[in-house]
Amino acid sequence: MNSLLLNCDIGESFGAWHMGLDAEVMPYIDCANIACGFHASDPSTMRKTVALAVEHGVRIGAHPGYPDLVGFGRRSMDCSPQEVEDLLLYQVGALEAICRSQGSRVSYVKPHGALYQDMMRKPPILRAVMRAVASYDRSLPLMLMTTRDNRQSQAMGAELGLTLWFEAFADRAYDPAGFLVARGQPGAVHHDRELIVDQAVSLAKGHALLASDGSSLSLQAHTLCVHGDNAESVAAVRRIREAFDALRPA
Amino acid sequence: MNSLLLNCDIGESFGAWHMGLDAEVMPYIDCANIACGFHASDPSTMRKTVALAVEHGVRIGAHPGYPDLVGFGRRSMDCSPQEVEDLLLYQVGALEAICRSQGSRVSYVKPHGALYQDMMRKPPILRAVMRAVASYDRSLPLMLMTTRDNRQSQAMGAELGLTLWFEAFADRAYDPAGFLVARGQPGAVHHDRELIVDQAVSLAKGHALLASDGSSLSLQAHTLCVHGDNAESVAAVRRIREAFDALRPA
Amino acid sequence: MNSLLLNCDIGESFGAWHMGLDAEVMPYIDCANIACGFHASDPSTMRKTVALAVEHGVRIGAHPGYPDLVGFGRRSMDCSPQEVEDLLLYQVGALEAICRSQGSRVSYVKPHGALYQDMMRKPPILRAVMRAVASYDRSLPLMLMTTRDNRQSQAMGAELGLTLWFEAFADRAYDPAGFLVARGQPGAVHHDRELIVDQAVSLAKGHALLASDGSSLSLQAHTLCVHGDNAESVAAVRRIREAFDALRPA
Amino acid sequence: MNSLLLNCDIGESFGAWHMGLDAEVMPYIDCANIACGFHASDPSTMRKTVALAVEHGVRIGAHPGYPDLVGFGRRSMDCSPQEVEDLLLYQVGALEAICRSQGSRVSYVKPHGALYQDMMRKPPILRAVMRAVASYDRSLPLMLMTTRDNRQSQAMGAELGLTLWFEAFADRAYDPAGFLVARGQPGAVHHDRELIVDQAVSLAKGHALLASDGSSLSLQAHTLCVHGDNAESVAAVRRIREAFDALRPA
Repeated sequence: MNSLLLNCDIGESFGAWHMGLDAEVMPYIDCANIACGFHASDPSTMRKTVALAVEHGVRIGAHPGYPDLVGFGRRSMDCSPQEVEDLLLYQVGALEAICRSQGSRVSYVKPHGALYQDMMRKPPILRAVMRAVASYDRSLPLMLMTTRDNRQSQAMGAELGLTLWFEAFADRAYDPAGFLVARGQPGAVHHDRELIVDQAVSLAKGHALLASDGSSLSLQAHTLCVHGDNAESVAAVRRIREAFDALRPA
Repeated sequence: MNSLLLNCDIGESFGAWHMGLDAEVMPYIDCANIACGFHASDPSTMRKTVALAVEHGVRIGAHPGYPDLVGFGRRSMDCSPQEVEDLLLYQVGALEAICRSQGSRVSYVKPHGALYQDMMRKPPILRAVMRAVASYDRSLPLMLMTTRDNRQSQAMGAELGLTLWFEAFADRAYDPAGFLVARGQPGAVHHDRELIVDQAVSLAKGHALLASDGSSLSLQAHTLCVHGDNAESVAAVRRIREAFDALRPA
Repeated sequence: MNSLLLNCDIGESFGAWHMGLDAEVMPYIDCANIACGFHASDPSTMRKTVALAVEHGVRIGAHPGYPDLVGFGRRSMDCSPQEVEDLLLYQVGALEAICRSQGSRVSYVKPHGALYQDMMRKPPILRAVMRAVASYDRSLPLMLMTTRDNRQSQAMGAELGLTLWFEAFADRAYDPAGFLVARGQPGAVHHDRELIVDQAVSLAKGHALLASDGSSLSLQAHTLCVHGDNAESVAAVRRIREAFDALRPA
Repeated sequence: MNSLLLNCDIGESFGAWHMGLDAEVMPYIDCANIACGFHASDPSTMRKTVALAVEHGVRIGAHPGYPDLVGFGRRSMDCSPQEVEDLLLYQVGALEAICRSQGSRVSYVKPHGALYQDMMRKPPILRAVMRAVASYDRSLPLMLMTTRDNRQSQAMGAELGLTLWFEAFADRAYDPAGFLVARGQPGAVHHDRELIVDQAVSLAKGHALLASDGSSLSLQAHTLCVHGDNAESVAAVRRIREAFDALRPA
């Protein structure tokens, strides 16, 4: 394919608190990573968010996180693999029920925040995540971060019979090993919209990127992580969508 | 039938805190009302509880409550019907996913504590509960309290196409209207085991009970609520089970 | 006095979620009702909020609520008076410690949302609130809503040796009994800024208001509740502040 | 002195869930480390626990933990030092208010569980804990674990003007560096009551212990951590108390 699925964190409001431009970004994305109540959202917010995704024909993904509302799931917690497996199942099921009440369903799973980071760094946590998804529904793809070498996660996924969707970032610089340059490092985050769109198109075409040391970096990706936090990021998503549409054969 | 399903609240531990003699009472019951994390339990406790129910071949019911852990879901909260519908779906789905990972499923729904009481007192809350169950899976029975006259809830259930399972109590006195005599009133709670077993058998045979004013009270019931809080209540459940077994034709 | 203390709910952000124009409204108010972590806020938000109040020389009030983050403390919960007393003390103390670390202190208490409403409707809840404040520090004033007849709460306050600060509203219509016209009723909320300022000035001067039925209504008030939710409400607070400043003798 | 203060975690029930033999162990201890609602307890449990401590004339210590009820504060969370400082102040103040309502006060601070472990392993977290205590009340001692060499923590405490109370364990084996042998290692936990009492008496007399490799280990200690979880641990505390009483000059 000459395109990538655009996935975006959605439904991160909580109770009386609003976050994100969900309605604005929804028209441009393919996959909505919907928060499940542990790091953000609540049952009523989830219902409204699912309705919005259904209305726009956007695929719904479960976006489970650590049980840390006040930290927005961004603080690593020393949960055991079994605890991770259990809390993942819980959140996926909660979202599924809300989808089901609206004639929809969960189509994939993407862990959030520190849980996502821990899954990428710690094989037992990755295995726990995979076990949860596999025991729930082996046909659900799991989104995880692509790096230069995905063989370890691919082997683990194959062992459990899971489909993996690797995701890349258009607005972040990569180091030569295919990891994101840490926020705070110079040039870690792209702010120039054309640079972001170019990186998105390169990834979609399967072209190599320029890593932070100037070397060439080939990344395997099925999906691109985009953001709907503010007007600027929504505008970038729109531009990426237009660029992807232009890639399609007439 | 000459019997009633024995249903019992199960899985009410939370994190490091234990509650209830789940393993002890499980052999004698038919239906386990499993807490779903809002008033009690957590994903890991739910997993262990589901495993225990599966091991004993006990039907699993979702036992959703208000989001009030510290109050154990026993304090009424002024939630809107929409909020009730949403939080019910969330909890049923969470339990379903954990069941599914163990090859089982949710077989019925019984609200907990103050949510149960509010559902019985406030028609919009009952409708919200029914809407949640119906939109999730119309084939799931809803457990609710039987009274002398169940026509209002039956009409509402029929309208939504829901199956209702009415439950009665063997260890509580009834007033002439078929409501439970309030705890704190003299004679509200039966402590004599034989009296409890007799009331259970009367309900199972469809015989009338003696209401608190001495009048005769006929109650329609599919299931009997029993308790596994302590050794004494488990012993009562065991005796009821034996009495019910003795009712069966050889 | 020819003025009223302007009190405003402040510090209602929670974790990653922002709410309210705290920095914008702080220059115009006298009293900051600071959320204490049960219905909004968290320890770090409380620290930042206290620092902001200290910077502007604004008195700090504890603004405790029900333990209902997702409902923002706006849903009545059937807590016992003892539970109310305990959760109030907890929240006041938590805020006090954060004040103390910054060389400040809690100067008054004003319950939030449904707890405030319940306190006004249910004498045992009012007594529980008063007992909490009195047992913590009898010199801390308690803010509560003024009505046409405050004798009952005044008697209760006198019995416990508490100072009461009655608050009135400039942007709400009153019924003849001195209660707020319910939101949703026509004319319940004033949107015209001059009307709001006029009502504020009338209250400050001790002049009677026009109740919703056209009758004259005298209200005893020490403080006026204002809002910093959005730019419009901040502008209204600024205008009230200017009007009050103009009332002062040169 | 020929004795050590006996400190014990107390008040770890939560809502409807009970934990620990508080009433049974209270007569034998000097210092009650009272949970503050983040990893265990709630305002009403705190009130009852404070009342029990006051009744027995036991010193009250704040026992703050990470905001992780379901994990009982035993899972490390990647909180920033500033977050740790804030959540500590919050919890100490909450307990102080409940003490104050009963004519008592917080007399020291001892972090709980993973926060305690993190404080011992990570100097920025130790400094955050010390800053919180110092900014609240410099006269409050902080309890922390003694090791063979306490100079680093002593220097940090001196810098902030804090009093440190070092605690040792009677029921745990020490390695040569003066750290606890990890649970799970052979011989890590003493189960023989006489061995426990002997270790307690050695620590009280300032005698060296035998480390796990047979070497001699001298530990500076002001207080001994004891447990009231079950009847056996309470019996051990009672024996330690009797042994300490016997050490006193007639």
